[in-house]
Amino acid sequence: MADGHFGDRLLEAVECKRSHVVVGLDPEYGSLPAEIVAAHPADHYATEAVMKAAAYSEFLTALLPAIADLACAVKPQIAYFEALGVFGYALYEDVIALAQSHGLLVIADVKRGDIGSTAEAYAKAHLDVAGADAVTLNPYFGTDGLEPFFKRCRDVGKGAYVLVKTSNASSAEIQDVSLSTGEPVYARVADLVEEWGRTAVGARGYSSIGAVVGGTHPEQGALLRKRLSTVPFLIPGYGAQGATAGDIAALFDANGTGAVVNSARAILYAYKKAPQKHWVDAARDEAAAMRAALWQAAGRA
Amino acid sequence: MADGHFGDRLLEAVECKRSHVVVGLDPEYGSLPAEIVAAHPADHYATEAVMKAAAYSEFLTALLPAIADLACAVKPQIAYFEALGVFGYALYEDVIALAQSHGLLVIADVKRGDIGSTAEAYAKAHLDVAGADAVTLNPYFGTDGLEPFFKRCRDVGKGAYVLVKTSNASSAEIQDVSLSTGEPVYARVADLVEEWGRTAVGARGYSSIGAVVGGTHPEQGALLRKRLSTVPFLIPGYGAQGATAGDIAALFDANGTGAVVNSARAILYAYKKAPQKHWVDAARDEAAAMRAALWQAAGRA
Repeated sequence: MADGHFGDRLLEAVECKRSHVVVGLDPEYGSLPAEIVAAHPADHYATEAVMKAAAYSEFLTALLPAIADLACAVKPQIAYFEALGVFGYALYEDVIALAQSHGLLVIADVKRGDIGSTAEAYAKAHLDVAGADAVTLNPYFGTDGLEPFFKRCRDVGKGAYVLVKTSNASSAEIQDVSLSTGEPVYARVADLVEEWGRTAVGARGYSSIGAVVGGTHPEQGALLRKRLSTVPFLIPGYGAQGATAGDIAALFDANGTGAVVNSARAILYAYKKAPQKHWVDAARDEAAAMRAALWQAAGRA
Repeated sequence: MADGHFGDRLLEAVECKRSHVVVGLDPEYGSLPAEIVAAHPADHYATEAVMKAAAYSEFLTALLPAIADLACAVKPQIAYFEALGVFGYALYEDVIALAQSHGLLVIADVKRGDIGSTAEAYAKAHLDVAGADAVTLNPYFGTDGLEPFFKRCRDVGKGAYVLVKTSNASSAEIQDVSLSTGEPVYARVADLVEEWGRTAVGARGYSSIGAVVGGTHPEQGALLRKRLSTVPFLIPGYGAQGATAGDIAALFDANGTGAVVNSARAILYAYKKAPQKHWVDAARDEAAAMRAALWQAAGRA
């Protein structure tokens, strides 16, 4: 169970670890180190899914302690777990507990959103049962489809990040369309997020209800940072998706805080670009380099 | 594995069964019939989640054959399964196969949506591994976040319904906001859905890529029906959420087709309003009444 305000807990982790790094947990069988694959031969398992789940488990069990002091949080992407069916779902639940046991906050990247009664079931699933510290959410349904998550932000120290401007190329098709006010759709969503977050602002000035703002759109992100003074950002798009620390500098506030930055593939599979290192060391070194680059970009170093 | 074009298969099921009814599978422990609850006492199970999953399993195993000839499809709402954690996820996969074994198409109500690589993992999870015939999707990411699902619509007979105008009260907050064109956001999404669906139109004139249009907004729905001639609709909001057959009449095309209508709680828990009947009979009678009302509203009776 969570203790205290999520927004405060996350900022505290950033300060303690001097790190804005969120390590995305996106396990993909085809990208696993050869030694992990070799340790789980197909003929030892009943099905391919069971084999892959065992391989993912060994991979993540070795990875988490190696990055625990370098990252403020991890972000399991549930899609990669669901892709193994029930065996992946079981691992998703296990990984949340395992990460927390290493002192990492867990942002479950589930991007759920539905009508109120269904949203209550989702909030129960991911914040109560799976026990994540925070989740990502899709805003399309509006307030009543998000309120069950927000209630847990206000009452039991959980967090929620609502999609505002996503990192992918097609994000413009809906998010950037001009409203009658002249502003894009995502600006309307951003204002809603600030409104939703107002009842969950913590002692450090940021809400437990934040925004997902892709690091691949630095100018739009900088404007959002100015507009949303109490909304913490979760920034995907760093590393494999192309955003650099320089792109992200303007997404931090004047104190070099207010945002955490996710990278998954570039850390998890860093060994591919550093074949002379053991894969765990390669991942650790990549996370350390990202930590340093962001600390500097935030004006803290 | 799916055979043939999803849009055609669904319309064929509507004609064969003379039914536009989709039965929503939203299992909730507090609403289960007393005999189901009594058959699964807490002290027979290791945990509450295992007990509830066993009760849901018995409930749905009895329900599905009872409504199989009255419904063209079922729509498991995954949130209610996820709320039991891994035990619920296992049941979600089982229920899809069980429903298909009774000749029912399965629309997995997952409302997923993410960047392309993640969407591929979700498509694999729900259309390949869990094996649903179709899924519901959230459009916020735009084309590249939906393409892995659409590819399976074009190539292997799967279907997808994209949220356009949802049935809940807060849907107006984002979906109804005016664009610079004077139209609401959901109209922009509707046009995208038609564009996405164009490469997946079947022999019966409808695409395998459809739209979710809440039955609780009859006027907006009627306009969408005229605007989107090749887009099949999945209509939530009937029954417990308040939409009537009269509200939905204008969402069918001139041939009385082009839409299927979901009801969950009003069918599953019909016994509450008919305490003299066995719960299975109450559910069956409610589904039959809905079938007749919709058939008439569609101008077919």
